[in-house]
Amino acid sequence: MKNGKKLWVIKIGGKVLDQEQALKAVLKELTGIQEPLILVHGGGKRATELAEALNVPQRMVDGRRITDSETLNIALMAYAGELNKKVVARLQSNGCNAIGLTGADGNVLKADKRSPEPVEFGWVGDPKKEYLDSSFLELILEKKMIPVFCALTHDGDGHMLNTNADTMASVIASGMAEKYEVNLVYLFEKKGVMKDVEEEDSLIPLVHLNDISSLQEQGIINAGMLPKLKNAAEAVEAGVSLVLIGSASNLQDILNEKPQSATYVVA
Amino acid sequence: MKNGKKLWVIKIGGKVLDQEQALKAVLKELTGIQEPLILVHGGGKRATELAEALNVPQRMVDGRRITDSETLNIALMAYAGELNKKVVARLQSNGCNAIGLTGADGNVLKADKRSPEPVEFGWVGDPKKEYLDSSFLELILEKKMIPVFCALTHDGDGHMLNTNADTMASVIASGMAEKYEVNLVYLFEKKGVMKDVEEEDSLIPLVHLNDISSLQEQGIINAGMLPKLKNAAEAVEAGVSLVLIGSASNLQDILNEKPQSATYVVA
Repeated sequence: MKNGKKLWVIKIGGKVLDQEQALKAVLKELTGIQEPLILVHGGGKRATELAEALNVPQRMVDGRRITDSETLNIALMAYAGELNKKVVARLQSNGCNAIGLTGADGNVLKADKRSPEPVEFGWVGDPKKEYLDSSFLELILEKKMIPVFCALTHDGDGHMLNTNADTMASVIASGMAEKYEVNLVYLFEKKGVMKDVEEEDSLIPLVHLNDISSLQEQGIINAGMLPKLKNAAEAVEAGVSLVLIGSASNLQDILNEKPQSATYVVA
Repeated sequence: MKNGKKLWVIKIGGKVLDQEQALKAVLKELTGIQEPLILVHGGGKRATELAEALNVPQRMVDGRRITDSETLNIALMAYAGELNKKVVARLQSNGCNAIGLTGADGNVLKADKRSPEPVEFGWVGDPKKEYLDSSFLELILEKKMIPVFCALTHDGDGHMLNTNADTMASVIASGMAEKYEVNLVYLFEKKGVMKDVEEEDSLIPLVHLNDISSLQEQGIINAGMLPKLKNAAEAVEAGVSLVLIGSASNLQDILNEKPQSATYVVA
Protein backbone atom coordinates (compact mmCIF):
# COMPACT_ATOMS: atom_id res chain seq x y z
CA MET A 1 0.00 0.00 0.00
CA LYS A 2 1.59 3.29 -1.11
CA ASN A 3 1.82 6.01 1.50
CA GLY A 4 1.97 8.70 -1.21
CA LYS A 5 5.39 9.92 -0.14
CA LYS A 6 8.34 10.43 -2.42
CA LEU A 7 11.62 8.66 -1.62
CA TRP A 8 15.06 9.11 -3.14
CA VAL A 9 17.37 6.09 -3.32
CA ILE A 10 20.77 7.40 -4.37
CA LYS A 11 23.72 5.18 -5.13
CA ILE A 12 27.13 6.83 -5.04
CA GLY A 13 29.76 4.95 -6.99
CA GLY A 14 32.81 5.21 -9.17
CA LYS A 15 35.57 7.73 -8.73
CA VAL A 16 33.41 10.01 -6.56
CA LEU A 17 34.16 7.68 -3.66
CA ASP A 18 37.90 7.86 -4.18
CA GLN A 19 38.14 11.64 -4.17
CA GLU A 20 37.59 13.03 -0.71
CA GLN A 21 36.62 16.51 -1.89
CA ALA A 22 34.16 15.20 -4.50
CA LEU A 23 32.56 12.94 -1.91
CA LYS A 24 32.28 15.77 0.62
CA ALA A 25 30.67 17.98 -2.02
CA VAL A 26 28.05 15.34 -2.88
CA LEU A 27 27.26 14.67 0.78
CA LYS A 28 26.86 18.40 1.34
CA GLU A 29 24.45 18.73 -1.57
CA LEU A 30 22.34 15.86 -0.27
CA THR A 31 21.48 17.96 2.79
CA GLY A 32 19.20 20.01 0.53
CA ILE A 33 16.85 17.07 -0.11
CA GLN A 34 13.57 17.56 1.76
CA GLU A 35 12.10 14.12 1.00
CA PRO A 36 13.15 10.86 2.65
CA LEU A 37 16.46 9.56 1.34
CA ILE A 38 18.32 6.24 1.34
CA LEU A 39 21.98 6.18 0.32
CA VAL A 40 23.89 3.22 -1.06
CA HIS A 41 27.61 3.36 -1.65
CA GLY A 42 30.05 1.16 -3.46
CA GLY A 43 33.63 0.66 -2.46
CA GLY A 44 35.65 2.55 -5.02
CA LYS A 45 39.25 1.49 -5.24
CA ARG A 46 39.67 1.04 -1.50
CA ALA A 47 39.16 -2.74 -1.39
CA THR A 48 41.66 -3.22 -4.20
CA GLU A 49 44.23 -1.00 -2.46
CA LEU A 50 43.71 -2.77 0.85
CA ALA A 51 44.06 -6.20 -0.77
CA GLU A 52 47.35 -5.07 -2.31
CA ALA A 53 48.62 -3.71 1.02
CA LEU A 54 47.71 -6.99 2.74
CA ASN A 55 49.08 -9.15 -0.09
CA VAL A 56 45.76 -10.84 -0.71
CA PRO A 57 45.65 -11.73 -4.41
CA GLN A 58 42.41 -10.68 -6.13
CA ARG A 59 40.78 -12.68 -8.88
CA MET A 60 38.20 -11.15 -11.20
CA VAL A 61 35.86 -12.98 -13.58
CA ASP A 62 33.97 -10.80 -16.08
CA GLY A 63 34.85 -7.73 -14.03
CA ARG A 64 33.47 -9.25 -10.84
CA ARG A 65 35.50 -10.03 -7.78
CA ILE A 66 35.89 -13.58 -6.50
CA THR A 67 35.25 -13.30 -2.76
CA ASP A 68 37.17 -15.84 -0.70
CA SER A 69 37.24 -15.51 3.12
CA GLU A 70 40.15 -13.08 3.13
CA THR A 71 38.59 -10.95 0.42
CA LEU A 72 35.30 -10.91 2.34
CA ASN A 73 37.20 -9.57 5.36
CA ILE A 74 38.66 -6.87 3.15
CA ALA A 75 35.19 -5.93 1.88
CA LEU A 76 33.90 -5.79 5.47
CA MET A 77 36.81 -3.61 6.52
CA ALA A 78 36.79 -1.25 3.53
CA TYR A 79 33.04 -0.89 2.95
CA ALA A 80 31.34 -1.44 6.34
CA GLY A 81 34.24 -0.12 8.41
CA GLU A 82 36.22 2.71 6.90
CA LEU A 83 34.02 4.06 4.11
CA ASN A 84 30.58 3.64 5.66
CA LYS A 85 31.53 5.25 8.96
CA LYS A 86 33.30 8.15 7.27
CA VAL A 87 30.18 8.85 5.19
CA VAL A 88 27.98 8.63 8.29
CA ALA A 89 30.22 10.93 10.35
CA ARG A 90 30.40 13.43 7.48
CA LEU A 91 26.60 13.46 7.06
CA GLN A 92 26.21 13.96 10.81
CA SER A 93 28.46 17.01 10.62
CA ASN A 94 26.14 18.36 7.87
CA GLY A 95 23.17 18.02 10.22
CA CYS A 96 21.84 14.83 8.55
CA ASN A 97 21.11 12.04 11.00
CA ALA A 98 22.60 9.12 9.08
CA ILE A 99 22.70 5.50 10.17
CA GLY A 100 25.11 3.05 8.54
CA LEU A 101 23.73 -0.34 7.62
CA THR A 102 24.58 -3.59 5.94
CA GLY A 103 21.85 -6.02 5.01
CA ALA A 104 22.63 -7.97 8.19
CA ASP A 105 21.86 -5.04 10.51
CA GLY A 106 18.31 -5.35 11.68
CA ASN A 107 18.10 -8.24 9.18
CA VAL A 108 17.02 -5.58 6.72
CA LEU A 109 18.19 -7.39 3.57
CA LYS A 110 19.15 -11.02 3.28
CA ALA A 111 20.62 -12.51 0.13
CA ASP A 112 21.03 -15.88 -1.52
CA LYS A 113 24.62 -17.04 -1.70
CA ARG A 114 25.36 -17.23 -5.39
CA SER A 115 25.41 -20.71 -6.92
CA PRO A 116 28.94 -22.04 -7.49
CA GLU A 117 27.90 -22.87 -11.08
CA PRO A 118 29.05 -21.75 -13.62
CA VAL A 119 31.56 -19.65 -11.63
CA GLU A 120 32.43 -20.08 -7.93
CA PHE A 121 32.30 -16.45 -6.80
CA GLY A 122 32.67 -17.39 -3.12
CA TRP A 123 31.01 -15.25 -0.44
CA VAL A 124 28.84 -13.30 -2.85
CA GLY A 125 25.14 -12.76 -2.34
CA ASP A 126 22.24 -11.83 -4.57
CA PRO A 127 19.48 -10.03 -2.68
CA LYS A 128 15.83 -9.92 -3.73
CA LYS A 129 13.26 -7.22 -3.11
CA GLU A 130 11.06 -9.77 -1.34
CA TYR A 131 13.80 -10.05 1.33
CA LEU A 132 13.76 -6.33 2.17
CA ASP A 133 12.32 -5.32 5.56
CA SER A 134 10.73 -2.14 4.26
CA SER A 135 8.86 -1.55 7.56
CA PHE A 136 12.11 -1.15 9.46
CA LEU A 137 13.42 1.28 6.84
CA GLU A 138 10.14 3.18 6.96
CA LEU A 139 10.50 3.49 10.74
CA ILE A 140 14.02 4.90 10.35
CA LEU A 141 12.89 7.30 7.62
CA GLU A 142 10.02 8.51 9.80
CA LYS A 143 12.61 9.36 12.45
CA LYS A 144 14.17 11.66 9.81
CA MET A 145 17.22 9.42 9.58
CA ILE A 146 19.12 8.60 6.40
CA PRO A 147 19.97 4.90 6.06
CA VAL A 148 23.43 4.61 4.50
CA PHE A 149 23.99 1.17 3.02
CA CYS A 150 27.26 -0.34 2.02
CA ALA A 151 27.04 -3.24 -0.40
CA LEU A 152 27.06 -6.17 2.00
CA THR A 153 24.27 -8.56 2.89
CA HIS A 154 24.08 -11.81 4.87
CA ASP A 155 22.82 -15.33 4.31
CA GLY A 156 21.00 -15.81 7.62
CA ASP A 157 23.39 -18.65 8.46
CA GLY A 158 26.03 -16.46 10.04
CA HIS A 159 27.93 -15.30 6.97
CA MET A 160 28.26 -11.86 5.50
CA LEU A 161 28.04 -11.71 1.69
CA ASN A 162 29.70 -9.32 -0.74
CA THR A 163 27.04 -7.76 -2.93
CA ASN A 164 27.02 -5.63 -6.06
CA ALA A 165 26.25 -2.05 -5.03
CA ASP A 166 24.14 -1.30 -8.15
CA THR A 167 22.04 -4.38 -7.46
CA MET A 168 21.73 -3.44 -3.79
CA ALA A 169 20.37 0.00 -4.74
CA SER A 170 17.98 -1.49 -7.31
CA VAL A 171 16.63 -4.07 -4.85
CA ILE A 172 16.18 -1.51 -2.06
CA ALA A 173 14.43 0.92 -4.42
CA SER A 174 12.20 -1.89 -5.72
CA GLY A 175 11.27 -3.09 -2.24
CA MET A 176 10.46 0.44 -1.11
CA ALA A 177 8.36 1.11 -4.24
CA GLU A 178 5.51 -0.80 -2.63
CA LYS A 179 5.11 2.09 -0.21
CA TYR A 180 6.81 5.12 -1.73
CA GLU A 181 7.06 6.90 -5.05
CA VAL A 182 10.73 6.07 -5.54
CA ASN A 183 13.31 7.86 -7.65
CA LEU A 184 16.46 5.76 -7.99
CA VAL A 185 19.62 7.66 -8.92
CA TYR A 186 22.94 6.12 -9.95
CA LEU A 187 25.66 8.73 -9.48
CA PHE A 188 29.14 8.31 -10.93
CA GLU A 189 31.64 10.42 -12.83
CA LYS A 190 29.98 10.28 -16.27
CA LYS A 191 27.02 12.33 -17.49
CA GLY A 192 24.94 9.20 -18.00
CA VAL A 193 24.71 6.58 -20.72
CA MET A 194 26.80 7.99 -23.58
CA LYS A 195 26.62 7.18 -27.29
CA ASP A 196 30.36 7.64 -27.35
CA VAL A 197 32.20 7.74 -24.01
CA GLU A 198 34.90 9.91 -25.57
CA GLU A 199 32.30 12.47 -26.69
CA GLU A 200 31.08 14.84 -23.95
CA ASP A 201 27.93 15.81 -25.85
CA SER A 202 26.74 12.32 -26.64
CA LEU A 203 24.45 11.79 -23.63
CA ILE A 204 21.48 9.56 -24.33
CA PRO A 205 18.83 11.45 -22.33
CA LEU A 206 16.16 8.77 -22.43
CA VAL A 207 16.36 4.98 -22.50
CA HIS A 208 13.18 2.95 -22.77
CA LEU A 209 13.35 -0.59 -21.46
CA ASN A 210 12.71 -1.80 -25.00
CA ASP A 211 15.77 0.08 -26.27
CA ILE A 212 18.28 -1.72 -24.06
CA SER A 213 18.81 -4.81 -26.19
CA SER A 214 19.23 -2.79 -29.41
CA LEU A 215 21.67 -0.40 -27.69
CA GLN A 216 23.58 -3.47 -26.60
CA GLU A 217 23.56 -4.96 -30.11
CA GLN A 218 24.83 -1.67 -31.57
CA GLY A 219 27.72 -1.85 -29.12
CA ILE A 220 26.69 1.45 -27.52
CA ILE A 221 26.35 -0.06 -24.08
CA ASN A 222 29.72 -1.29 -22.88
CA ALA A 223 30.50 -4.05 -20.40
CA GLY A 224 30.57 -1.67 -17.45
CA MET A 225 27.25 0.00 -18.24
CA LEU A 226 25.24 -3.12 -19.07
CA PRO A 227 24.78 -4.43 -15.50
CA LYS A 228 23.86 -0.89 -14.34
CA LEU A 229 21.20 -0.63 -17.06
CA LYS A 230 19.89 -4.10 -16.23
CA ASN A 231 19.59 -3.10 -12.57
CA ALA A 232 17.87 0.11 -13.66
CA ALA A 233 15.47 -1.87 -15.84
CA GLU A 234 14.60 -4.27 -13.01
CA ALA A 235 13.83 -1.33 -10.74
CA VAL A 236 11.51 0.24 -13.34
CA GLU A 237 9.79 -3.09 -13.87
CA ALA A 238 9.33 -3.42 -10.08
CA GLY A 239 7.48 -0.11 -9.90
CA VAL A 240 10.23 2.44 -9.24
CA SER A 241 8.92 5.69 -10.73
CA LEU A 242 12.11 6.94 -12.31
CA VAL A 243 15.70 5.76 -12.64
CA LEU A 244 18.36 8.33 -13.42
CA ILE A 245 21.97 7.58 -14.30
CA GLY A 246 24.16 10.63 -14.10
CA SER A 247 27.10 12.59 -12.84
CA ALA A 248 27.63 13.55 -9.22
CA SER A 249 28.60 16.99 -10.47
CA ASN A 250 25.08 17.43 -11.90
CA LEU A 251 23.36 16.40 -8.68
CA GLN A 252 21.30 19.58 -8.26
CA ASP A 253 19.83 19.35 -11.76
CA ILE A 254 19.17 15.64 -11.27
CA LEU A 255 17.32 16.30 -8.00
CA ASN A 256 15.24 18.92 -9.80
CA GLU A 257 14.48 16.29 -12.48
CA LYS A 258 15.76 18.65 -15.14
CA PRO A 259 15.67 17.13 -18.66
CA GLN A 260 19.11 16.31 -20.12
CA SER A 261 20.63 16.32 -16.61
CA ALA A 262 21.17 12.55 -16.80
CA THR A 263 19.97 9.44 -18.60
CA TYR A 264 16.36 8.70 -17.70
CA VAL A 265 15.48 5.02 -17.77
CA VAL A 266 11.73 4.56 -18.17
CA ALA A 267 9.24 1.80 -18.98
CA MET B 1 11.37 8.31 34.12
CA LYS B 2 11.90 4.57 34.64
CA ASN B 3 9.78 2.24 32.55
CA GLY B 4 10.26 -0.57 35.09
CA LYS B 5 11.95 -2.87 32.59
CA LYS B 6 15.18 -4.68 33.10
CA LEU B 7 18.01 -4.20 30.60
CA TRP B 8 21.28 -6.07 30.23
CA VAL B 9 24.30 -4.17 28.91
CA ILE B 10 26.99 -6.76 28.24
CA LYS B 11 30.50 -5.89 27.18
CA ILE B 12 32.50 -8.68 25.58
CA GLY B 13 36.23 -8.13 25.72
CA GLY B 14 39.61 -9.72 26.10
CA LYS B 15 40.60 -13.04 24.61
CA VAL B 16 36.96 -14.11 24.06
CA LEU B 17 36.96 -11.93 20.94
CA ASP B 18 40.08 -13.53 19.52
CA GLN B 19 38.85 -17.11 19.80
CA GLU B 20 36.17 -17.85 17.24
CA GLN B 21 34.72 -20.81 19.12
CA ALA B 22 34.59 -18.96 22.46
CA LEU B 23 32.89 -16.00 20.80
CA LYS B 24 30.36 -18.25 19.06
CA ALA B 25 29.59 -19.95 22.37
CA VAL B 26 28.96 -16.64 24.15
CA LEU B 27 26.76 -15.33 21.33
CA LYS B 28 24.78 -18.56 21.44
CA GLU B 29 24.23 -18.27 25.19
CA LEU B 30 23.00 -14.70 24.83
CA THR B 31 20.02 -16.00 22.85
CA GLY B 32 18.60 -17.26 26.14
CA ILE B 33 18.19 -13.76 27.57
CA GLN B 34 14.51 -12.78 27.65
CA GLU B 35 15.02 -9.16 28.68
CA PRO B 36 16.22 -6.36 26.39
CA LEU B 37 19.96 -6.53 25.73
CA ILE B 38 22.64 -4.17 24.45
CA LEU B 39 26.04 -5.59 23.48
CA VAL B 40 29.32 -3.71 23.40
CA HIS B 41 32.47 -5.31 22.05
CA GLY B 42 36.10 -4.35 22.16
CA GLY B 43 38.57 -5.15 19.44
CA GLY B 44 40.73 -7.89 20.82
CA LYS B 45 44.05 -8.28 19.09
CA ARG B 46 42.68 -7.64 15.63
CA ALA B 47 43.61 -3.95 15.38
CA THR B 48 47.17 -4.72 16.48
CA GLU B 49 47.47 -7.56 13.94
CA LEU B 50 46.07 -5.39 11.18
CA ALA B 51 48.44 -2.53 12.03
CA GLU B 52 51.35 -4.96 11.80
CA ALA B 53 50.17 -6.35 8.46
CA LEU B 54 49.81 -2.80 7.10
CA ASN B 55 53.11 -1.63 8.60
CA VAL B 56 51.48 1.11 10.64
CA PRO B 57 53.58 1.59 13.77
CA GLN B 58 51.51 1.66 16.97
CA ARG B 59 52.37 3.82 19.96
CA MET B 60 50.95 3.13 23.39
CA VAL B 61 51.01 5.46 26.42
CA ASP B 62 49.97 3.89 29.74
CA GLY B 63 48.48 0.95 27.86
CA ARG B 64 46.37 3.21 25.66
CA ARG B 65 46.72 3.47 21.92
CA ILE B 66 47.70 6.74 20.27
CA THR B 67 45.21 7.10 17.41
CA ASP B 68 46.63 8.94 14.41
CA SER B 69 44.64 9.00 11.14
CA GLU B 70 46.01 5.68 9.91
CA THR B 71 45.34 4.01 13.25
CA LEU B 72 41.80 5.40 13.27
CA ASN B 73 41.26 3.78 9.85
CA ILE B 74 42.51 0.52 11.30
CA ALA B 75 40.09 0.81 14.23
CA LEU B 76 37.23 1.53 11.82
CA MET B 77 38.16 -1.46 9.68
CA ALA B 78 38.77 -3.93 12.50
CA TYR B 79 35.99 -2.92 14.91
CA ALA B 80 33.16 -1.42 12.81
CA GLY B 81 33.90 -3.51 9.72
CA GLU B 82 35.15 -7.00 10.32
CA LEU B 83 34.32 -7.72 13.95
CA ASN B 84 31.01 -5.89 14.32
CA LYS B 85 29.51 -7.39 11.17
CA LYS B 86 30.65 -10.89 12.05
CA VAL B 87 29.01 -10.60 15.46
CA VAL B 88 25.81 -9.24 13.88
CA ALA B 89 25.67 -11.99 11.23
CA ARG B 90 26.32 -14.65 13.87
CA LEU B 91 23.55 -13.32 16.14
CA GLN B 92 21.17 -13.23 13.18
CA SER B 93 21.89 -16.90 12.53
CA ASN B 94 20.95 -17.57 16.18
CA GLY B 95 17.59 -15.89 15.65
CA CYS B 96 18.58 -12.65 17.40
CA ASN B 97 17.82 -9.55 15.36
CA ALA B 98 21.04 -7.62 15.96
CA ILE B 99 21.91 -4.20 14.59
CA GLY B 100 25.52 -3.01 14.52
CA LEU B 101 26.17 0.54 15.65
CA THR B 102 28.90 3.03 16.33
CA GLY B 103 28.14 6.20 18.24
CA ALA B 104 27.87 8.03 14.90
CA ASP B 105 25.02 5.87 13.62
CA GLY B 106 21.77 7.61 14.36
CA ASN B 107 23.94 10.07 16.31
CA VAL B 108 23.34 7.77 19.23
CA LEU B 109 26.51 8.67 21.16
CA LYS B 110 28.75 11.65 20.55
CA ALA B 111 32.03 12.13 22.37
CA ASP B 112 34.44 14.91 23.21
CA LYS B 113 37.77 14.61 21.44
CA ARG B 114 40.27 14.13 24.23
CA SER B 115 42.37 17.16 25.15
CA PRO B 116 45.91 17.01 23.72
CA GLU B 117 47.20 17.77 27.24
CA PRO B 118 48.95 16.06 28.96
CA VAL B 119 49.15 13.40 26.21
CA GLU B 120 48.13 13.85 22.55
CA PHE B 121 46.10 10.69 22.03
CA GLY B 122 44.90 11.79 18.60
CA TRP B 123 41.46 10.71 17.35
CA VAL B 124 40.25 9.47 20.72
CA GLY B 125 36.89 10.41 22.19
CA ASP B 126 35.40 10.40 25.65
CA PRO B 127 31.63 9.97 25.61
CA LYS B 128 29.26 11.14 28.35
CA LYS B 129 25.94 9.66 29.39
CA GLU B 130 24.29 13.02 28.70
CA TYR B 131 25.20 12.54 25.02
CA LEU B 132 23.36 9.20 24.70
CA ASP B 133 20.17 9.16 22.63
CA SER B 134 18.39 6.68 24.87
CA SER B 135 15.07 7.19 23.04
CA PHE B 136 16.49 5.82 19.81
CA LEU B 137 17.92 2.81 21.65
CA GLU B 138 14.59 2.30 23.41
CA LEU B 139 12.86 2.27 20.01
CA ILE B 140 15.27 -0.38 18.73
CA LEU B 141 14.86 -2.46 21.89
CA GLU B 142 11.07 -2.27 21.58
CA LYS B 143 11.46 -3.75 18.09
CA LYS B 144 13.15 -6.73 19.84
CA MET B 145 16.46 -5.83 18.27
CA ILE B 146 19.86 -6.11 19.95
CA PRO B 147 22.06 -3.07 19.42
CA VAL B 148 25.66 -4.25 19.00
CA PHE B 149 28.12 -1.44 19.64
CA CYS B 150 31.74 -1.37 18.68
CA ALA B 151 33.86 1.12 20.57
CA LEU B 152 33.77 4.07 18.20
CA THR B 153 32.04 7.41 18.58
CA HIS B 154 32.11 10.68 16.63
CA ASP B 155 32.72 14.34 17.37
CA GLY B 156 29.82 15.82 15.39
CA ASP B 157 32.31 17.64 13.18
CA GLY B 158 32.75 14.79 10.73
CA HIS B 159 35.36 12.70 12.52
CA MET B 160 35.07 9.25 13.99
CA LEU B 161 36.74 8.78 17.38
CA ASN B 162 38.36 5.71 18.88
CA THR B 163 36.81 5.02 22.28
CA ASN B 164 37.56 2.75 25.20
CA ALA B 165 35.12 -0.16 25.08
CA ASP B 166 34.76 -0.39 28.88
CA THR B 167 33.92 3.31 29.01
CA MET B 168 31.48 2.94 26.12
CA ALA B 169 29.62 0.18 27.99
CA SER B 170 29.60 2.18 31.22
CA VAL B 171 28.27 5.32 29.53
CA ILE B 172 25.57 3.41 27.63
CA ALA B 173 24.48 1.58 30.80
CA SER B 174 24.45 4.86 32.73
CA GLY B 175 22.42 6.69 30.08
CA MET B 176 19.90 3.85 29.88
CA ALA B 177 19.58 3.69 33.69
CA GLU B 178 17.28 6.69 33.53
CA LYS B 179 14.65 4.44 31.96
CA TYR B 180 15.61 0.84 32.72
CA GLU B 181 16.81 -1.25 35.66
CA VAL B 182 20.22 -1.89 34.15
CA ASN B 183 22.64 -4.74 34.85
CA LEU B 184 26.05 -4.01 33.34
CA VAL B 185 28.29 -7.04 32.76
CA TYR B 186 31.96 -6.97 31.82
CA LEU B 187 32.87 -10.33 30.32
CA PHE B 188 36.45 -11.39 29.78
CA GLU B 189 38.58 -14.47 30.39
CA LYS B 190 39.07 -14.09 34.16
CA LYS B 191 36.61 -14.99 36.90
CA GLY B 192 36.40 -11.38 38.04
CA VAL B 193 38.57 -9.16 40.22
CA MET B 194 41.10 -11.54 41.79
CA LYS B 195 43.12 -11.13 44.98
CA ASP B 196 45.90 -12.96 43.18
CA VAL B 197 45.64 -13.39 39.41
CA GLU B 198 47.71 -16.57 39.64
CA GLU B 199 45.28 -18.07 42.17
CA GLU B 200 42.06 -19.50 40.69
CA ASP B 201 40.19 -19.41 44.01
CA SER B 202 40.97 -15.83 44.90
CA LEU B 203 37.87 -14.17 43.41
CA ILE B 204 36.72 -11.07 45.26
CA PRO B 205 32.97 -11.62 45.08
CA LEU B 206 31.93 -8.16 46.21
CA VAL B 207 33.53 -4.75 45.78
CA HIS B 208 31.93 -1.72 47.40
CA LEU B 209 32.73 1.61 45.80
CA ASN B 210 34.45 2.61 49.05
CA ASP B 211 36.78 -0.41 48.80
CA ILE B 212 38.30 0.55 45.46
CA SER B 213 40.94 2.98 46.68
CA SER B 214 42.12 0.65 49.45
CA LEU B 215 42.28 -2.30 47.01
CA GLN B 216 44.39 -0.08 44.78
CA GLU B 217 46.67 0.95 47.66
CA GLN B 218 47.18 -2.69 48.62
CA GLY B 219 48.25 -3.37 45.03
CA ILE B 220 45.43 -5.88 44.55
CA ILE B 221 44.00 -3.99 41.58
CA ASN B 222 46.48 -3.98 38.75
CA ALA B 223 46.89 -1.49 35.93
CA GLY B 224 44.56 -3.43 33.61
CA MET B 225 41.76 -3.79 36.13
CA LEU B 226 41.77 -0.26 37.53
CA PRO B 227 40.10 1.49 34.54
CA LYS B 228 37.49 -1.29 34.39
CA LEU B 229 36.67 -0.83 38.08
CA LYS B 230 36.53 2.94 37.66
CA ASN B 231 34.08 2.52 34.77
CA ALA B 232 32.09 0.09 36.91
CA ALA B 233 32.04 2.58 39.78
CA GLU B 234 30.86 5.41 37.53
CA ALA B 235 28.01 3.24 36.29
CA VAL B 236 26.93 2.38 39.84
CA GLU B 237 27.08 6.04 40.80
CA ALA B 238 24.95 6.90 37.75
CA GLY B 239 22.18 4.57 38.86
CA VAL B 240 23.05 1.26 37.20
CA SER B 241 21.54 -1.42 39.47
CA LEU B 242 24.36 -3.92 39.35
CA VAL B 243 27.78 -4.20 37.72
CA LEU B 244 29.28 -7.66 37.32
CA ILE B 245 32.83 -8.40 36.20
CA GLY B 246 33.33 -12.01 35.26
CA SER B 247 34.24 -14.79 32.90
CA ALA B 248 32.48 -15.48 29.62
CA SER B 249 32.58 -19.15 30.58
CA ASN B 250 30.39 -18.38 33.63
CA LEU B 251 27.81 -16.47 31.61
CA GLN B 252 24.81 -18.58 32.61
CA ASP B 253 25.49 -18.17 36.32
CA ILE B 254 26.12 -14.47 35.84
CA LEU B 255 22.80 -14.04 34.03
CA ASN B 256 21.10 -15.86 36.89
CA GLU B 257 22.82 -13.43 39.28
CA LYS B 258 24.27 -16.36 41.21
CA PRO B 259 26.52 -15.29 44.11
CA GLN B 260 30.25 -15.97 43.54
CA SER B 261 29.68 -16.18 39.76
CA ALA B 262 31.60 -12.93 39.27
CA THR B 263 32.73 -9.81 41.08
CA TYR B 264 29.74 -7.69 42.03
CA VAL B 265 30.46 -3.98 42.16
CA VAL B 266 27.90 -2.19 44.33
CA ALA B 267 27.39 1.19 45.98
